Amino acid sequence: MQPMRFTSETITDGVSERPFTLGNVPGVLWSPAEAVAPSRALVLLAHGGGQHKKAPAMQGRARRLAVACGFAAAAIDAPGSGDRPRSEEDERFIAELREKMAAGEPVGPHVARYNAAQAERAVPEWRAILDALRAQPGLDGPVGFWGLSMGSATGVPLAAAEPRIAAAVFGLAGHETLGEAAAQVTIPVEFLLQWDDELIPRESGLGLFDAFASREKSLHANPGRHGDVPMFEVESSLRFFGRHLGADGAPGDGG
Amino acid sequence: MQPMRFTSETITDGVSERPFTLGNVPGVLWSPAEAVAPSRALVLLAHGGGQHKKAPAMQGRARRLAVACGFAAAAIDAPGSGDRPRSEEDERFIAELREKMAAGEPVGPHVARYNAAQAERAVPEWRAILDALRAQPGLDGPVGFWGLSMGSATGVPLAAAEPRIAAAVFGLAGHETLGEAAAQVTIPVEFLLQWDDELIPRESGLGLFDAFASREKSLHANPGRHGDVPMFEVESSLRFFGRHLGADGAPGDGG
Repeated sequence: MQPMRFTSETITDGVSERPFTLGNVPGVLWSPAEAVAPSRALVLLAHGGGQHKKAPAMQGRARRLAVACGFAAAAIDAPGSGDRPRSEEDERFIAELREKMAAGEPVGPHVARYNAAQAERAVPEWRAILDALRAQPGLDGPVGFWGLSMGSATGVPLAAAEPRIAAAVFGLAGHETLGEAAAQVTIPVEFLLQWDDELIPRESGLGLFDAFASREKSLHANPGRHGDVPMFEVESSLRFFGRHLGADGAPGDGG
Repeated sequence: MQPMRFTSETITDGVSERPFTLGNVPGVLWSPAEAVAPSRALVLLAHGGGQHKKAPAMQGRARRLAVACGFAAAAIDAPGSGDRPRSEEDERFIAELREKMAAGEPVGPHVARYNAAQAERAVPEWRAILDALRAQPGLDGPVGFWGLSMGSATGVPLAAAEPRIAAAVFGLAGHETLGEAAAQVTIPVEFLLQWDDELIPRESGLGLFDAFASREKSLHANPGRHGDVPMFEVESSLRFFGRHLGADGAPGDGG
């Protein structure tokens, strides 16, 4: 196993933030700054397309997981995102995406194909990251996964392949490219769907929710477009992880 | 307005329970037992078919609303339910329901028709109950409504007609009999759907969610049959009411 290198630590509002690298993959580990718990749950955060490991949506979720649940959270730059170089394939995808958007063509299938190809690189990376994180002191508790859109394109096959992941929040993705992997997922899933998603047809999102083999799965659908997931769903996912990864249930007095 | 008569008060675990009658309608008012708040939110709880005002599902929700949110909650026996006499129509419905179930016939449309007829009696009753409750000291805060199945068959037209209702949890109901009323509902709605509901076809439930005119509406779908709504949805509805009726947001640290 390659060594995980931590480069610094910043503590803000009781949360420790530690950038790291594993090989050529840069990431960030957030955790409560107080004394290390004997066994802390860890949530893997996979960003969406065009985002990166320290995007506000990632930071916000990571900090809430640390403060409200006492959990650690980790994010990495996906292949071709954030601080990582773009491959020819990445460049071609972006150029074609811009052309299609300029021409007013639907981009959903184009994005789904790229995300599926991207997952073939990203899934083994996440498994190596998980190996290295679990070797850190105090990070041997249960593991969760959170990722929407491109994060789900990676996360669904990751959860199908990786028995250490015990609960996952997915969403903004369709069954065409992910249905087969979803049928192998049996862990509790909270699944987000945007009722007016311009990238994922409603039936495709409903079909992916239907495909999960999980005994416990909850579909949360809200009005709005792909990027309009309401803020209250952040808190809902905290409670979901609290229920499934926590020693004493959900944060606050949620059940 | 007829007087609302309170017959007794029992305080258990910090929650006051006060049975009442308004005319021939018996009900129960729950509220936090501590000193009356200057202005307390009130949630109306409408039970499902075959249930009554003090069924465990009603008591449990009412007590959690009082303890976790500091809200009051009220339930009444629906026409023909609980302590109220059954009309000839009620008796005929039950006899036909038993026949259909014994014959293995689908009962969903039969139940929906009865519930729609029942709502014509129940909606004016709830409005009179609301008038009388709002006249009680401290109950002049915002008003919410919770009711699934038959509770939604009453609640959706009630919310369409009653501007004092500010947020509602509905579900386990379909668009055929309720879509028209739902299109007049603009308040925030949390809508529960059972993915394998044997009474409400999935498309009919999705269609009713779609029909609400509300800018904020969340569909929560879970696996299982009509009666299998998971317990964690109780806590979700508390947070929903906390967000929309509370002075300071959701209970606990929910957002």
